[in-house]
Amino acid sequence: MLSKNKSKFIISLQKKKVRDEYQLYVIEGDKIVREYVSAGMPIKSLIAKPEFINSFSKDVTITFETEPVSYEELKQISSLKTPHNALAVVCMPEQKINQKKLLKEKCVVLDCIQDPGNLGTIIRAAAWFGIKNIVCSEDCVDIYNSKVIQASMGAIIHVNVLYSNLEEFLKAASEKEVPVYGTLLEAESIYDTELLDNAIILLGNESKGISDNLIPYIDHRIMIPRFTGNKPGIDSLNVGMAASVIFSEFAQRSV
Amino acid sequence: MLSKNKSKFIISLQKKKVRDEYQLYVIEGDKIVREYVSAGMPIKSLIAKPEFINSFSKDVTITFETEPVSYEELKQISSLKTPHNALAVVCMPEQKINQKKLLKEKCVVLDCIQDPGNLGTIIRAAAWFGIKNIVCSEDCVDIYNSKVIQASMGAIIHVNVLYSNLEEFLKAASEKEVPVYGTLLEAESIYDTELLDNAIILLGNESKGISDNLIPYIDHRIMIPRFTGNKPGIDSLNVGMAASVIFSEFAQRSV
Repeated sequence: MLSKNKSKFIISLQKKKVRDEYQLYVIEGDKIVREYVSAGMPIKSLIAKPEFINSFSKDVTITFETEPVSYEELKQISSLKTPHNALAVVCMPEQKINQKKLLKEKCVVLDCIQDPGNLGTIIRAAAWFGIKNIVCSEDCVDIYNSKVIQASMGAIIHVNVLYSNLEEFLKAASEKEVPVYGTLLEAESIYDTELLDNAIILLGNESKGISDNLIPYIDHRIMIPRFTGNKPGIDSLNVGMAASVIFSEFAQRSV
Repeated sequence: MLSKNKSKFIISLQKKKVRDEYQLYVIEGDKIVREYVSAGMPIKSLIAKPEFINSFSKDVTITFETEPVSYEELKQISSLKTPHNALAVVCMPEQKINQKKLLKEKCVVLDCIQDPGNLGTIIRAAAWFGIKNIVCSEDCVDIYNSKVIQASMGAIIHVNVLYSNLEEFLKAASEKEVPVYGTLLEAESIYDTELLDNAIILLGNESKGISDNLIPYIDHRIMIPRFTGNKPGIDSLNVGMAASVIFSEFAQRSV
């Protein structure tokens, strides 16, 4: 039986301010929770149906508190309309990356990504295509937002995410001569562009694109051409889809 | 002022049964509605704020009924939590494709795609990468579902979608020697596979993949490799992201 205070606290973690204060966030869903447990992530408490809690094999070390609850109790604390069988409160990792190290590896830089589904998709694509580092502008949606976690399918385990002032970060990159690729409308087709390894891939806001103050830092302007010949077509690809294509190109072709 | 009956009817179009009966569907959002109007799509009625209705330039021929409404009225008939300024009721196109023609052009075949967001994303990616034909299994989500329309950003204007029995369709394709590419876990990397033009690209259900009875029709088993070396990583790419990468490969490389 979940205490009232605990329920209240878990619900309050839907707010960024509370998450930041306690350095905790919530994950939901059987698959994600199972992945976190297997990966030994710093879970604080697991709130789940008794069957779920009892389903872990003896090999898995449970170092966190477990709280068996009913479906109705889960429903009360869930951010989802239809909750799954398990929810966990997880400690945020300490900041694992520093700028210096970042500039030696491939890195995705996100300028004001606002839609949680898009941020989650980008994180998932980055994890798939072997990109470990993501730098978000301070006005990007919070990675610990429950919708980001859902869309990333737990992929935030596999990437480092840093919120930072992008102009300063890109300035530092330019001083170190790290090549910066940015998506712009007037640009070269990514298929014809030489892609360098350990580069920065800069993606812009869903409707406004890359901010004016960041454009001067782009060394290689890239775009994904539309294959509709002379016929009219849709305006744009969604930023998550564009990211998938761009990361795929870098993964297979960068030198 | 929208009549009660009309409001009721528009809300009832959220149900597939009603859409099918009247051969009508609803689109929402300023951008999509504007695109439909510009493209001369068969709109039956436009229900929007007066400013929106008056915003069309003189060059645009308005052949449909227009109904100025207040935000509160829009809210009552909208499927969205926060409605936009415009909503339109649109006639479904007559079935424009036949199987014979289909087998002469590149075609995406979708086996039981259940998530409306995924289907919308796939339609958008297809439109971007010049794929005009999509065949859906009868258990795919309905393309006129409001969430599919939102996620496709109106891209269904640019593609033909046919719901069909996939086994029969793939059998006919195999008789005509149309190459079929299917995504499977045990498969060759798409980057190393020769991609033939005018092929069929078969994508499977979000969790179960391609149905067992369709697998024998696959000539080329493809997959998108994960670039994480020996380190553990995420399980899978989302089907919309995978579609974007696969369509991109076909668009640039198929011969």
